[in-house]
Amino acid sequence: MSNSLGTIFKITSFGESHGPSVGIVIDGCPAGLYIDEDYINSRLAKRRPGQSAITTQRKESDNCNIISGVFENTSTGAPICILIENNDQRSVDYDELKNIIRPGHADYTYNQKYGIRDYKGGGRSSARITAGWVAAGAIAELLLKHKFPELSINAYVSQVYNLAMTKPHIFKPEDIDSNIVRCPDKELAKKIEALILKTKEEGDSVGGIISCNVEGCPAGLGEPVFNKLQSALGKAMLSINAVKGVQFGDGFDSASKKGSESNDSFLAGSLKNITETNSSGGMLGGISNGMPLFFEVAFKPASTIALPQNTVDSSGNPVILKSQGRHDPCVVPRAVPIVEAMTAIVLADMHLMSYSNHI
Amino acid sequence: MSNSLGTIFKITSFGESHGPSVGIVIDGCPAGLYIDEDYINSRLAKRRPGQSAITTQRKESDNCNIISGVFENTSTGAPICILIENNDQRSVDYDELKNIIRPGHADYTYNQKYGIRDYKGGGRSSARITAGWVAAGAIAELLLKHKFPELSINAYVSQVYNLAMTKPHIFKPEDIDSNIVRCPDKELAKKIEALILKTKEEGDSVGGIISCNVEGCPAGLGEPVFNKLQSALGKAMLSINAVKGVQFGDGFDSASKKGSESNDSFLAGSLKNITETNSSGGMLGGISNGMPLFFEVAFKPASTIALPQNTVDSSGNPVILKSQGRHDPCVVPRAVPIVEAMTAIVLADMHLMSYSNHI
Amino acid sequence: MSNSLGTIFKITSFGESHGPSVGIVIDGCPAGLYIDEDYINSRLAKRRPGQSAITTQRKESDNCNIISGVFENTSTGAPICILIENNDQRSVDYDELKNIIRPGHADYTYNQKYGIRDYKGGGRSSARITAGWVAAGAIAELLLKHKFPELSINAYVSQVYNLAMTKPHIFKPEDIDSNIVRCPDKELAKKIEALILKTKEEGDSVGGIISCNVEGCPAGLGEPVFNKLQSALGKAMLSINAVKGVQFGDGFDSASKKGSESNDSFLAGSLKNITETNSSGGMLGGISNGMPLFFEVAFKPASTIALPQNTVDSSGNPVILKSQGRHDPCVVPRAVPIVEAMTAIVLADMHLMSYSNHI
Amino acid sequence: MSNSLGTIFKITSFGESHGPSVGIVIDGCPAGLYIDEDYINSRLAKRRPGQSAITTQRKESDNCNIISGVFENTSTGAPICILIENNDQRSVDYDELKNIIRPGHADYTYNQKYGIRDYKGGGRSSARITAGWVAAGAIAELLLKHKFPELSINAYVSQVYNLAMTKPHIFKPEDIDSNIVRCPDKELAKKIEALILKTKEEGDSVGGIISCNVEGCPAGLGEPVFNKLQSALGKAMLSINAVKGVQFGDGFDSASKKGSESNDSFLAGSLKNITETNSSGGMLGGISNGMPLFFEVAFKPASTIALPQNTVDSSGNPVILKSQGRHDPCVVPRAVPIVEAMTAIVLADMHLMSYSNHI
Repeated sequence: MSNSLGTIFKITSFGESHGPSVGIVIDGCPAGLYIDEDYINSRLAKRRPGQSAITTQRKESDNCNIISGVFENTSTGAPICILIENNDQRSVDYDELKNIIRPGHADYTYNQKYGIRDYKGGGRSSARITAGWVAAGAIAELLLKHKFPELSINAYVSQVYNLAMTKPHIFKPEDIDSNIVRCPDKELAKKIEALILKTKEEGDSVGGIISCNVEGCPAGLGEPVFNKLQSALGKAMLSINAVKGVQFGDGFDSASKKGSESNDSFLAGSLKNITETNSSGGMLGGISNGMPLFFEVAFKPASTIALPQNTVDSSGNPVILKSQGRHDPCVVPRAVPIVEAMTAIVLADMHLMSYSNHI
Repeated sequence: MSNSLGTIFKITSFGESHGPSVGIVIDGCPAGLYIDEDYINSRLAKRRPGQSAITTQRKESDNCNIISGVFENTSTGAPICILIENNDQRSVDYDELKNIIRPGHADYTYNQKYGIRDYKGGGRSSARITAGWVAAGAIAELLLKHKFPELSINAYVSQVYNLAMTKPHIFKPEDIDSNIVRCPDKELAKKIEALILKTKEEGDSVGGIISCNVEGCPAGLGEPVFNKLQSALGKAMLSINAVKGVQFGDGFDSASKKGSESNDSFLAGSLKNITETNSSGGMLGGISNGMPLFFEVAFKPASTIALPQNTVDSSGNPVILKSQGRHDPCVVPRAVPIVEAMTAIVLADMHLMSYSNHI
Repeated sequence: MSNSLGTIFKITSFGESHGPSVGIVIDGCPAGLYIDEDYINSRLAKRRPGQSAITTQRKESDNCNIISGVFENTSTGAPICILIENNDQRSVDYDELKNIIRPGHADYTYNQKYGIRDYKGGGRSSARITAGWVAAGAIAELLLKHKFPELSINAYVSQVYNLAMTKPHIFKPEDIDSNIVRCPDKELAKKIEALILKTKEEGDSVGGIISCNVEGCPAGLGEPVFNKLQSALGKAMLSINAVKGVQFGDGFDSASKKGSESNDSFLAGSLKNITETNSSGGMLGGISNGMPLFFEVAFKPASTIALPQNTVDSSGNPVILKSQGRHDPCVVPRAVPIVEAMTAIVLADMHLMSYSNHI
Repeated sequence: MSNSLGTIFKITSFGESHGPSVGIVIDGCPAGLYIDEDYINSRLAKRRPGQSAITTQRKESDNCNIISGVFENTSTGAPICILIENNDQRSVDYDELKNIIRPGHADYTYNQKYGIRDYKGGGRSSARITAGWVAAGAIAELLLKHKFPELSINAYVSQVYNLAMTKPHIFKPEDIDSNIVRCPDKELAKKIEALILKTKEEGDSVGGIISCNVEGCPAGLGEPVFNKLQSALGKAMLSINAVKGVQFGDGFDSASKKGSESNDSFLAGSLKNITETNSSGGMLGGISNGMPLFFEVAFKPASTIALPQNTVDSSGNPVILKSQGRHDPCVVPRAVPIVEAMTAIVLADMHLMSYSNHI
C-alpha cells in the first residue's frame, strides 16, 4: 500500500532491485510540457551506480524508457509511465542471503509484515527504486523551470562522518559538482573522498548529511495544516532509504534559541529580500515566503558492510554475516539527485495545488 | 486544501482560534469501540491553555462535544465529529494587529497565498486547532489500547533552550508528569521551569525538544515506500505548529557514525528484545520491528514575544511591534500531549492498514 | 470509511438522523468567495422536511450554522464546517424498531457490517444527512456562478410511478418550482400530486425519476479515465439514498440505437451550439463538450410504508411491521435540491481540477 | 489526473492505443497470493481484439508481462505492474484523421481540455487501455476466489439494439460463453450475431446492454455514504468507454413501483436466502446483504462507423468523414470481461476495506 505520493502531480512507484525494470507513473502532469529525454537521462546519470570510485560498482546504463503520456516530445495530460531497466543484476550474489536476517536492512520487518520476501538485492526495499523517482523529479523540474525560470534546486553533501562544512554554508553552486563527493567545499571534499575510500577498504560504511537550498521559490506554496511545505518535504525526504532525520531552517538548533533570536524581521518595502535573516528556512505557517528554502537530511551509514556481523537466520539461529555484494560505502553523494528530485516533485505538486488558492 | 490526514483512520481538522469552536472529524474508526469521554477530556486537559504558570493564561475548559458517530458510548462505524468550544476569545486583543505582519507568524504567507486573513488570534494558523487533534488522538489511543494492551506512548520534554537531558534518556515514565515542564529529569525540570519564568518576565520565548518513546508497538506497522513509519510520523510531527525538525533513533547523530556502529545486531531466539541496540529507533525499511519506537521533535521558540520587534505593516511600511496578547513563553510542555496524539493517530492508521498485509 | 467526496473541492459528511446535528466540512474552497448565508438557507429550505402536504411532517428549521472557514462573509481558504441542527427528533417513535429488521432499509446490512446499529431514525443511513450536502452544494453553486455567470443547474421531477413527462422534455425552467411536485409540466404535476396524496392515504410510497439539465457548462470538465464527468456524477448520484440508476444523454435508450443515429454531428464554425443533436448529454470521452449536460436519476419508492409488511427481528424470528413514523410517500420532490447540490459539488471539483489541464 | 481507482486495492492505469504498451499498477494486493499468469492471460484473451467475426480485426496476442510485485509466482505486497504490448498498431491508418473531429469520439473534448491530442487510434481515450484493467481484474478475482470460493461473477449480453432477453433472466452460466455474442439465450444470440454482421456490412454499429450477476457475495461490503457498493460499482462501470447508464436491481423500473412492491421481505431464519425477492439487487443502504448482486450497464453504439458523417476539422470547417479503420460493429461482447474485471476490482477493494468494519 501507499506507493503513491502527491495530490495533483502524483507519482506511483513500482519495481524491485532484481526484476526486469523499476518504474514510475506520473499522473497529473499538465499537457503541453516539452519532455526533454536528454535531461531526464542526465539526472539518472547523476544517481546511476558505478559512476565513480566511491559508489557501488553495479553497472547500469539507466536510460529512461517512456511508455506513455508523451506525444511528439510533449506531455498530453495522460499519465506518464517511465521504465528504467535492471541489467547488471547478478542474482547469484544474493542466494546465500536467502535465509539471513541482515542487520540494518528490512529483511526482518518484511518477513514480519508480509510473510514472504524477495531477497534478491533487497527487492522492493532497495534504493534502486529511486531511479524512478529521479526520472519523475526531472519532469517536475522541467515543469517548475517552465513556470519559474529563476527557480533552482541545489542539494549538496555538507557532512560525511565527522567531516562537516562550517555554518553558514557559503559556496558557489557550480562547485557542488566539481568533485565526486558533491560537496562544494573543495578542500573538505578531498578529505571526505579519502575517508570514504579508507572506509571502503576497511569494509565499513559512513553516514552523512545532505543540505538543500532552493532559490527563486515563489511565495504561497504549501497547504497550511497537514500538507505544510515542511510536512510534505519531510515526508518525501523520510521516504528515501537510510534517512533518519530532516530539519528546516535552523532546525534542531531552533530548540536552543530565544524568540528574539529566531524570529526573522521583515524588511520594509522588500520584494526579493523578504526577511533580514532566514532562520525559518523560507517557510512560515507551512507556506513558502519567497526566501530561499533551506533544509537538511540526515542519512545513516549504509547497512551493507563487509565486516563480519552477528545476526540470525530466519529461524532465529545465530549466524555471522560477511557481505560480499557490491555496495556503496557512503550513500550521500548518489543521494544528492534523489533529494533534488523529491524536492522538485513536492514543489511541482504544491505549485499545481496553489492554482486554487483563491478565486 | 489538505486538512485531512490518514488513509483508513482519517482525521479532518477544521476551525480557527476565534471562531465558535474548533473540531475534528474521524472517519474510519471501527465500530464497537468504547468511547470514553472522560479519557478524551483528560487528554484535552493536558493540552489546555492556562493549566500552569508557564503557559498562556487564556482560559478554556476544553471539554469534548461529540456530535456524531457514537451511540450509547460506542463507536458505530460512522464518522465521529467532535467540537471543542472557544470561550475566552478576547478578539479585541487582536484588532490592532489587523494590518501588522508579525515576524515568525503566518501573517505574511497567508496574505500572499489567500489574499485574505483571519487576523484574530492567528485564525487557522493558531495552535488552538490542535485541540481537535488531541481529541482524535485520544480515540486512536483507545483503539490501540484495545488491540495492544501493552502499548504505551510517552512523550516528554528533553530539552529547553540549552538545558538538555543527557543521552541515553533513562527515567521512569511516571516522572514525566511529576512537574509542569513534563521533563522526567526532576532536577533539570526545576531549572527549565525557572528559565521559562525568567524568559516570560523578559518578554521573550524559548524553543525546545520533545522526545517520544513507544513501548509495546507490534512489528509490521508502516507501508514501506511513501508511507514508511518514519515518513508518516514525520509528516504528522511537522504538521504541529513551530516544529522545525524531526529525527528517528540516532537521527542526525547517524550521520557521524559508521555502519559497524549503527547497525543493530539481531539477538538469537529473541522475541521481545529483537536487537541488541536500538539505533534505528524501532523501524527498519520503514516498518516497525517490535523494538521501542524512539523519535525527537524540535520546536522553535514561540513567535509571539513581548519584546519590541522591527517589522512591517500590510503596505510594507516599517513598524515596531510590541505584543500584548496572552501567549506561551515556551510551547513544548503543552505540545507533549499533541505529539502523543499525533503518534497515536499515525499508529492507529498504520495498524488498520496492516490488516491487509497478507492473505 | 469513505465519508469524503472530491479531489480538490472535497466534502466530508458527518452526523445522524437523531444526533444533535448533521454537518459537512468543505475543504478546498478557494479564498475570497462571498459566502451568502441566505442563499445556503434558501437551498436548505427546498430540501427541508415538512415543506408541503406531500412530504414528511417532521419539522426542522434547517438553518446553516457556519463554524469555520468564513471571515467577514468571505471564504478564507480554511475548511468550512457547517452544522444543521436536528430539532424535531422524537426518538420515542423508534424505540419499538430497535429489534426489527425493516425491509428495504439498511438495518440488516448495518448489523452485518458493524455489529451495532443506531436505530433512531435510520441513524447514519437516514437521508437527513443530505442536509449537509445541500449546504455544501450551495457553496459550490456560489463558486460556479462566480466563475461562469451563465451556468445554471436545473433538476426536476420527470416521472412519478407511471406518470412521466414525454421526451424530449420541453419546458420553462421557472415552471419547475410552480408546484410542490417540482415537475415543470403543470398538468402532469397535478396528477402526480394527487397520486402521491392517494398513495400516502393508502400507507404506501411511490418511486420516480429526476432529470437534470446544466446549461452554460464550459467544455473541458472531467478527468478522462476514472473520474470521467459521468463517473463522478454517477458516483455522486448513486450516493443519494434510494437511487437505483443513473443515465447520461440517451442513457439506456442508447442500447437500442445505431451509431449513425447516436453520433452527434459537429456543427461547422460553431461556438455555442457545438453539435446538432445532444445524444451524448454533453460529454464525450468523459469530458464536457460545452453542450448542455443532461442526465437522469431513478429513485425507488421510500422503504418506510404504513402498510403491514412481513419481516424478521434481530434474531431472525418472523414479525409483522407496521410503521407509524413520519415519512415521505414520495422522495423525489425533496430530492430535487439534493441532485442539484451533488451536481454543483462535482462540477466545482472538476472545475478546480481543470486548472492544471495544460501548462 | 485521476488515473487511479480504489482505496486499498488501488489500480493506476497508463498507456495509449498506439504506444509501445498499455499497463496497470496494482497497489495494495495483499502478500501471499498465488498469481496465476495463465488465468490472467485467459481473461485477456476474452477481451482481445480479433477473437471473432463480430469484433475488430486488429490482431493482438495480449499476453501479460509482469514487471514487479510477484516473486516466485506469489504476490509480495509490493505494487504489481503489468504491461500488455501493442503490436498491430498501423499508425498510418490514423494520419488522415489528424485534423478531423470525429463525432461521438473524444477528439473535440481532448483538444478543448489539453490543447494537444494523440490522434493515433484515440490515444488515451481508446478502449485499448482496458486491457490493463482486465489484467488487474484477474488478480482481484484470484484474491476474491481465495477468500470466498463460492463467489462467482457472471456478466453477459442481455440486449443488442432491439433484441433483448426477457426478464427475469433465467439461464445457465455456462451458456454465456457458448456463443461469440456472450448471450446465454442461445436463440437470441444467433439473431444478435446476424444483426451485428449485417450492421457491420452496412458500415454502422449498434449499442447494447450487459447484465452482471454476482453469486456468493458476502454481506457487509460497501462503505455506506460516498462509497456505497452501488456508487463504487457505478463509478467503475461509467469509466468504461461508451457506457451511458447503469442500474442496480430493479433500476429504472423502481421508479414506477410502489414501496409495497419494491421492498424485499426478509425471510425468517434465513441464511443463504436473505430476502424473498431481490428488487434491491443485493444491496441495502449501500452495503451488500448476501443476496446475489445484480446490475446492468448500457453501452452506446461504437462511434466509429464506415458510413459517411458530417463533421468538422480542427479549424471548424465542414468535412465528410468516412472511416476506414478497423473497429467493432458492437462493443458489448468484448466488454463482458471488462465489466467482470471492474466488478472484481471494486469487490476486492470493498472486501479489504471491510477488514476494519469493527474492532
